[in-house]
Amino acid sequence: MVLITYDIDTTDAAGRKRLRRIAKACVNYGQRVQASVFECDVDAATLVTLKAALLEIADPAKDSLRIYHLGNKWQGKVEHFGTKPSYDPEGFLAL
Amino acid sequence: MVLITYDIDTTDAAGRKRLRRIAKACVNYGQRVQASVFECDVDAATLVTLKAALLEIADPAKDSLRIYHLGNKWQGKVEHFGTKPSYDPEGFLAL
Repeated sequence: MVLITYDIDTTDAAGRKRLRRIAKACVNYGQRVQASVFECDVDAATLVTLKAALLEIADPAKDSLRIYHLGNKWQGKVEHFGTKPSYDPEGFLAL
Repeated sequence: MVLITYDIDTTDAAGRKRLRRIAKACVNYGQRVQASVFECDVDAATLVTLKAALLEIADPAKDSLRIYHLGNKWQGKVEHFGTKPSYDPEGFLAL
């Protein structure tokens, strides 16, 4: 399992488009758990593909992308508190 | 090391205040790596204190708080791509 977190500079239209594309790319591989946080249960080869897709979208000068490798026994490593909003994979947050 | 990620409902002033207070509480214990993502290198006892502080601030009906336990050898588990904006601990993002 990998955790993907990102900060996309949405101060312009291009950034807002990148945000939607990044979220859409992640949704194909995992579960959105917060607005900019995805849990993706992918093998090494699939992660290479996902990473390439994200790096192709993100602007390295403006955006920040972090990937945390949680390993296989990750369920016991996560605690959640509060609400679990449902997310519209198309990018609009249904809070 | 624990990773703290959060989504705070900022649709009202109370939510924006909670966001600032959550960030401020996290800054006391760790490094802000993205707008709503902190890496906190804390022991178990300190984590109990930090968690209590965050849960006291967050509104469980509106906000989402996730804590990922990355373990001690976490440095090799993190990949970063893109910019590393400096964050004003007081809550204003210096992007």
